[in-house]
Amino acid sequence: MATGSKGSKKYVYSFGGGKADGNESMKNLLGGKGANLAEMAGHKDLRLPVPPGFTLTTEVCTYYYHDKRTYPAALKEQVNKALAQVEKLMGRKFGDPASPLLVSVRSGARKSMPGMMETVLNVGLTEKTIPGLIKQSGGNTRFVYDAYRRLITMYSDVVMEKAAGIEPADDMGIRKQLERIMDKLKRDKGYSGDTDLTADDLKTLCNQYKARIKEVLKKEFPDNPMEQLWGGIGAVFASWNGKRAISYRRIEGIPDEWGTAVNVQTMVFGNMGEDSATGVAFTRNPGNGENGFYGEYLINAQGEDVVAGIRTPGPLNSYSRSEHNKSLKTLEGVMPNLYRELVNFRRRLEKHYHDMQDIEFTIEKDRLFMLQCRSGKRNGPAAVRMAVDMLKEKLIDKQTAVMRVTPAQLDELLHPIIDPKVELAHKPMAKGLPAGPGGACGQIVFSAPDAVEWKKQGKKVILVREETNPEDVEGMRAAEAILTARGGMTSHAALVARGWGKCCVVGCSALHVDYNKRELKADGKTLKEGDWLTLNGTKGNVYEGKLPMIDASSENRLLNDFLKVCDSIKKLGVRTNADTPEDATRAREFGAEGIGLFRTEHMFYGKGSHEPLFILRKMIVSKTLEERKKAIDELFPYVKKDIKGTIEAMDGYPVVVRLLDPPLHEFVPREKEKLEQLAEDLNISMDELAKRAENLHESNPMMGHRGVRLGVTYPEVSEMQIRAIFEAAAELIKEGKKPYPEIMIPVVCDVKELNDQFAIYKKIYDEVVAKYNLKSIKCMFGTMIEIPRAAIVADRLATVAQFFSFGTNDMTQMGFGFSRDDIGWFLPDYLKKGILPDDPFQTIDQEGIGEIIKIGIERGRKGRTDLEVGICGEHGGDPRSVEFCHKVGMDYVSCSPFRVPIARLAAAQAVLKEKI
Amino acid sequence: MATGSKGSKKYVYSFGGGKADGNESMKNLLGGKGANLAEMAGHKDLRLPVPPGFTLTTEVCTYYYHDKRTYPAALKEQVNKALAQVEKLMGRKFGDPASPLLVSVRSGARKSMPGMMETVLNVGLTEKTIPGLIKQSGGNTRFVYDAYRRLITMYSDVVMEKAAGIEPADDMGIRKQLERIMDKLKRDKGYSGDTDLTADDLKTLCNQYKARIKEVLKKEFPDNPMEQLWGGIGAVFASWNGKRAISYRRIEGIPDEWGTAVNVQTMVFGNMGEDSATGVAFTRNPGNGENGFYGEYLINAQGEDVVAGIRTPGPLNSYSRSEHNKSLKTLEGVMPNLYRELVNFRRRLEKHYHDMQDIEFTIEKDRLFMLQCRSGKRNGPAAVRMAVDMLKEKLIDKQTAVMRVTPAQLDELLHPIIDPKVELAHKPMAKGLPAGPGGACGQIVFSAPDAVEWKKQGKKVILVREETNPEDVEGMRAAEAILTARGGMTSHAALVARGWGKCCVVGCSALHVDYNKRELKADGKTLKEGDWLTLNGTKGNVYEGKLPMIDASSENRLLNDFLKVCDSIKKLGVRTNADTPEDATRAREFGAEGIGLFRTEHMFYGKGSHEPLFILRKMIVSKTLEERKKAIDELFPYVKKDIKGTIEAMDGYPVVVRLLDPPLHEFVPREKEKLEQLAEDLNISMDELAKRAENLHESNPMMGHRGVRLGVTYPEVSEMQIRAIFEAAAELIKEGKKPYPEIMIPVVCDVKELNDQFAIYKKIYDEVVAKYNLKSIKCMFGTMIEIPRAAIVADRLATVAQFFSFGTNDMTQMGFGFSRDDIGWFLPDYLKKGILPDDPFQTIDQEGIGEIIKIGIERGRKGRTDLEVGICGEHGGDPRSVEFCHKVGMDYVSCSPFRVPIARLAAAQAVLKEKI
Repeated sequence: MATGSKGSKKYVYSFGGGKADGNESMKNLLGGKGANLAEMAGHKDLRLPVPPGFTLTTEVCTYYYHDKRTYPAALKEQVNKALAQVEKLMGRKFGDPASPLLVSVRSGARKSMPGMMETVLNVGLTEKTIPGLIKQSGGNTRFVYDAYRRLITMYSDVVMEKAAGIEPADDMGIRKQLERIMDKLKRDKGYSGDTDLTADDLKTLCNQYKARIKEVLKKEFPDNPMEQLWGGIGAVFASWNGKRAISYRRIEGIPDEWGTAVNVQTMVFGNMGEDSATGVAFTRNPGNGENGFYGEYLINAQGEDVVAGIRTPGPLNSYSRSEHNKSLKTLEGVMPNLYRELVNFRRRLEKHYHDMQDIEFTIEKDRLFMLQCRSGKRNGPAAVRMAVDMLKEKLIDKQTAVMRVTPAQLDELLHPIIDPKVELAHKPMAKGLPAGPGGACGQIVFSAPDAVEWKKQGKKVILVREETNPEDVEGMRAAEAILTARGGMTSHAALVARGWGKCCVVGCSALHVDYNKRELKADGKTLKEGDWLTLNGTKGNVYEGKLPMIDASSENRLLNDFLKVCDSIKKLGVRTNADTPEDATRAREFGAEGIGLFRTEHMFYGKGSHEPLFILRKMIVSKTLEERKKAIDELFPYVKKDIKGTIEAMDGYPVVVRLLDPPLHEFVPREKEKLEQLAEDLNISMDELAKRAENLHESNPMMGHRGVRLGVTYPEVSEMQIRAIFEAAAELIKEGKKPYPEIMIPVVCDVKELNDQFAIYKKIYDEVVAKYNLKSIKCMFGTMIEIPRAAIVADRLATVAQFFSFGTNDMTQMGFGFSRDDIGWFLPDYLKKGILPDDPFQTIDQEGIGEIIKIGIERGRKGRTDLEVGICGEHGGDPRSVEFCHKVGMDYVSCSPFRVPIARLAAAQAVLKEKI
Repeated sequence: MATGSKGSKKYVYSFGGGKADGNESMKNLLGGKGANLAEMAGHKDLRLPVPPGFTLTTEVCTYYYHDKRTYPAALKEQVNKALAQVEKLMGRKFGDPASPLLVSVRSGARKSMPGMMETVLNVGLTEKTIPGLIKQSGGNTRFVYDAYRRLITMYSDVVMEKAAGIEPADDMGIRKQLERIMDKLKRDKGYSGDTDLTADDLKTLCNQYKARIKEVLKKEFPDNPMEQLWGGIGAVFASWNGKRAISYRRIEGIPDEWGTAVNVQTMVFGNMGEDSATGVAFTRNPGNGENGFYGEYLINAQGEDVVAGIRTPGPLNSYSRSEHNKSLKTLEGVMPNLYRELVNFRRRLEKHYHDMQDIEFTIEKDRLFMLQCRSGKRNGPAAVRMAVDMLKEKLIDKQTAVMRVTPAQLDELLHPIIDPKVELAHKPMAKGLPAGPGGACGQIVFSAPDAVEWKKQGKKVILVREETNPEDVEGMRAAEAILTARGGMTSHAALVARGWGKCCVVGCSALHVDYNKRELKADGKTLKEGDWLTLNGTKGNVYEGKLPMIDASSENRLLNDFLKVCDSIKKLGVRTNADTPEDATRAREFGAEGIGLFRTEHMFYGKGSHEPLFILRKMIVSKTLEERKKAIDELFPYVKKDIKGTIEAMDGYPVVVRLLDPPLHEFVPREKEKLEQLAEDLNISMDELAKRAENLHESNPMMGHRGVRLGVTYPEVSEMQIRAIFEAAAELIKEGKKPYPEIMIPVVCDVKELNDQFAIYKKIYDEVVAKYNLKSIKCMFGTMIEIPRAAIVADRLATVAQFFSFGTNDMTQMGFGFSRDDIGWFLPDYLKKGILPDDPFQTIDQEGIGEIIKIGIERGRKGRTDLEVGICGEHGGDPRSVEFCHKVGMDYVSCSPFRVPIARLAAAQAVLKEKI
């Protein structure tokens, strides 16, 4: 080992020449890139041709930020030693005029943050070393001055301007200024592209660049290789706290404390001529998961050229061919030997990593170098297919398969798509690369800030750009979908969209975007900002206008295979929240094992609710017990029919039916016409009706006269509902079905409320069993736990309740004292200031509300050891919340039908995470 | 011991002849009356002349109700044995024609329930034993038939009708029917009163009574002494569940399970002639607590005659003389030897019981018998005086003194009285006995149901009756005060009102009440139902109209002496909730040791709030930070001045200042005029203003944008308030004062909210200390704990907060999910059905909310061992809640100024109860 001096901490890890100080397991210290370079270079099963180099650890970054942007004392010596080792391996010397070594300086965080931090290439190139490089390149002067121009551009931008904290006005950044110098030269000489520039032109440009830099930044561009190296290292560390990086970390939930490593690595050049190339590849197709080697390459280009999407890359092989690149030659065809070597590497990498790898390679003068290797990003369908396939191939076990798919990726499979029949009848106005799955439609915007702004106004937008860059991430997040005119499957837009599972079409070259006029042209049509566009991100199609979306997820056989693996691991039951036979049926297709929440009041909201709602309203504004009983009797057959249909659809599975929950005044109509009709039917004056309705008003309805409080004050209302449930069940038994209702009392805070309602339950049960001449009806009596006090006295509640269902929406409201309807006033500030990590209505607040739930479960099971415990409400479909439910020992979660697959996956992952 | 057979449980306890099976400590088993009879009869220091008898235990009552109104098998034999022992002591035999023994059968519960259960006297008198009794009475035939008439009347009413569950229509009860027979006879014979009835008349009546009883109740009046005895015993047990008794128990909080004992005791007769008498007395004055022997008596009367208030009794001695009875002779004058004997008993009883005793005595033919002795009821002023005096007399220790006064009694001393200056200028329209303390005014009603009904309508009423009876208790409860035309200080009305500390004037004989016309006449005036009346219950004066009330409690030296004793025991600090210098000053007079809650928003409500409220409104509807800051700057001097005044009034004591708490829209005006003024000042249109105000609307404001949420979103508002507090304190320091502000953040649910506000606190503190050139300002930073989640994460909150103050109002709202504004819809049903034992906003719900508070304190002290913990809100003045606060280890309670004395007492009693 060359680095690490006596006694001082090891800050620098070398790799190359068939060995390495580090390995894959050291990602926290070396970053993902550094660890993988070490693994590729040093592991006995791999020892791939990695250009030698070394990694400055993330601890250096931490030190840098803790100690006012300084370095540990031992660092310099360790870098020097590591550099010497590289020089030895390469037979070149850093700064040596005769045989100079050039290096790249790149970031590498624990988790990939594509394009969010800075890079400096060609470090070590100076006036003194230029001749040496010309010699190495076989006399390619133009290549060398082009490399020099690139170094000057990058260095002045990244090191001398950004890292120095200089923030020029719009368009006055040094990079833009240098670009304008080049544009002027090209105009002056009448060139059409960069390739027209001669070696002399480039040499001239380099001199002009350096003069401009001195003029603008008041500093000389450094001609000293070591100064360049340390400048580059400092700029990478500084970029960890750049605006883009911070913004990305916030979205991805990456902690600020992690820091980045810095990788210093020998430069290899894919742009040394026609015998050189560069490319990126995935060991399997990241777009659909197929077991095919999928990639792109460019002859005579640097890696950045592929990622930036400036030239359209060629397909790696025939498998990688698409509409977009079908006219281009494959690497397989152009460099068959090198391609075979790459295929060999592919095989060894998958076998070694047991996962799909995303690789970067460069061919310098017919010699293949591996520059990077990491676990490849993939969209949801691809993730599921790879997991299922690799399990079949015995490359991974089922636990690994389950952990390979994130809930968000699974969600992609459940995303809407364009109705295929409608889509067939439409001709796309343009075609691009299918970079993000599913369908989406929205109104066109042409800038990221517009996307953010329009989204705030509640609009659905599609962000249309020439190409995207890291500055755009927030706008991309806000958009329903992203459409770019340029770039390939590995372009920025594609990488980011794939990570998020967002619908995305890239490289749609038929598209002409005019930012100034705010319009796009394609297929002879012109669409303006605000016009509607529909994308098929799975096929890469772009349609004018608004096409209808459908959901086809339940037909997905792959999904079912995957979820069966999940089911073999998970312990939590997964039920659904459903109020109709249709929802119940759909949920069963998604694998729901019962209904966790059937809300009796739903029947008064949707279609077909006109008649029962009218009767309900009569009941609500009734003043005497007689009036009320009359309305209740009228309502009974509707309620019974409604409940019966859903219980039937869930035949054999439990159905938790919650008795009437909302405050009654919610149902009082506001329209004059409906009020008049009501007054007429009740034979009272409009004044009287208004008075009765006014009487129902509450200051804080959320904590008012609702749930069991209605049942206690109007026992006849509970009675009617319970009778409807039992009679529905009794009729189903007579019809040969296996109904299993669980009757749930909401808004309970004391066991005496349950006693009160249980007496009704018992009485009606006996009456119905006798009426239908049955032996028994399988059923349970239980309660929502949604009031903090209920959790506190859960032991007593459980003496009566046979099951608990945590109503975490209300529990979050009461536990936090947050009215969900009013939270908009302060939640954005709370999230921005970091007072809350998440919206607690999205993800259970484990620290507070979770603690209340834990208390409720512990005490509840003290009161009744076989207590059934579940959760209903939207948290039941949130993966982190599902994991929490598993940890605290619930029996099941319940969520909306479309979240059932997510919950099944999250429940399986919860088991596996517990074992870690 | 005569009772208790081999092996079977002892159900019957004998007393008499200088010994007794039981004693005072056995109240739960023998009832209060039975235990005291045993004590008086059997204790070596007493051995008073108690007519011998025996007690059937409360366990018999329990058995009776558990086993379908039957008795334990062993009971009959035990009763027979006990009866035989009494016969032996008295030398008479039950049912013996020659020398018959007569007994009384009375109830006796653990706690006195005056007049709520049944009694049968003269049991054992039959056609066969009448001659023997005539012989015993020295040939007083009239006396014997009068006794027989009384037995028949009581027995037919209590045993044959009520206990048999017969419920006749109004005025058709057997007692009424018998009374009408007597009235007819008196009319027929032209008699003016009962005393005109001759022995023959009474004999005739007895026969007519028995005939009517057979006719109406289809049963013979029993001529068998044993049948009479068991009938009486059964009727007493049955009366435990009579309507009156149940209603009284509910008001007094006596558990239904206690049951009553039955006392069977030899009859002694105060109505055997002019050498006989009966009376009741208190060993000290129960109306004011003076150490004087205070009582009433009637010559030739039975005890019931005194209590019923039918004849006005004479004063026991000159000390007992009043306006009312000044013309009557004293017992001291009429029977000096017997009076001296009674004075001797008084001395021994107080020495033995260490408390004021309420005694009943009867003189039968110059022989003194003690019929009852119990701890005497007293009003609040009397309770306090007795406690203070007995402590001085060394009759009791200070712990006992503190326990002798209930918080409700103390509250009586704090009751309003009629403004003395105004009262001096008014002549009473009538005078009666001062039976309940303080002053009261209200509208006249003439029946108990009316009192209940009018009270429900929000009216203040005074219940005016000839005399009251146990049927009236609910109406008496509802009334502000009670006025009766008849009865003495020991009449039903006086006893009940004294127990409740309610203003009451009894025996106001100048009053003529006409129930039919609904009017009263006195002093030549006629007042109708609904007219106003004012009573001075301390003096017994009745005034026409509505006189002004004042509070004079703080001048009460006795009260201060007593509270100092409390202070020497209590551990809890007692602070006050005060928002003005006046309140603060008054609270200090009441003994407050600081302010537990100063609400910054109060200044916008009361008088003088016009200008600051207007500025606040500008702040609220401001749209930009600039507009808001301008309004805040304008507001600053008002806030500072306001806070400074109150901190100054509490000089040297801590003042907890709560930052702005309510949702802002509470302050938005509704009146058009004020809105216009606001729009004009802000230079915006009314439409714009309306829009801004509408924007502030919230669905559930209780859980909306308020408290610290305002402070987080509008830090400039917190800043202004904190600066006002510190500058007020700084100015006071400069003026030589000792300010001690504790700044409290409301509605907190997470420590990050506190961090956010603490940063402001720290910054402003430093600025103000520098500005005023001070070394430091004594102060604390803390938080309300009023959100359930705050209690759960209290350990983390305490890392920043130096003190907690539990806001139990909001905690009860959130913990129960009860909106206090809306609870009226269901709370009455919840209390009626026994789902809740109390209104949880009155008395802390210890089971649920209390548990949350306990969790909060435990966790809070984990986070900071020297955490200061208190409570603010109305529970701080509720005695049971204060006891809870002591038990869970709070440092102080805080309540309204007038509740401070109550809290001091409750805090001391909490210490003593803990030791029990």
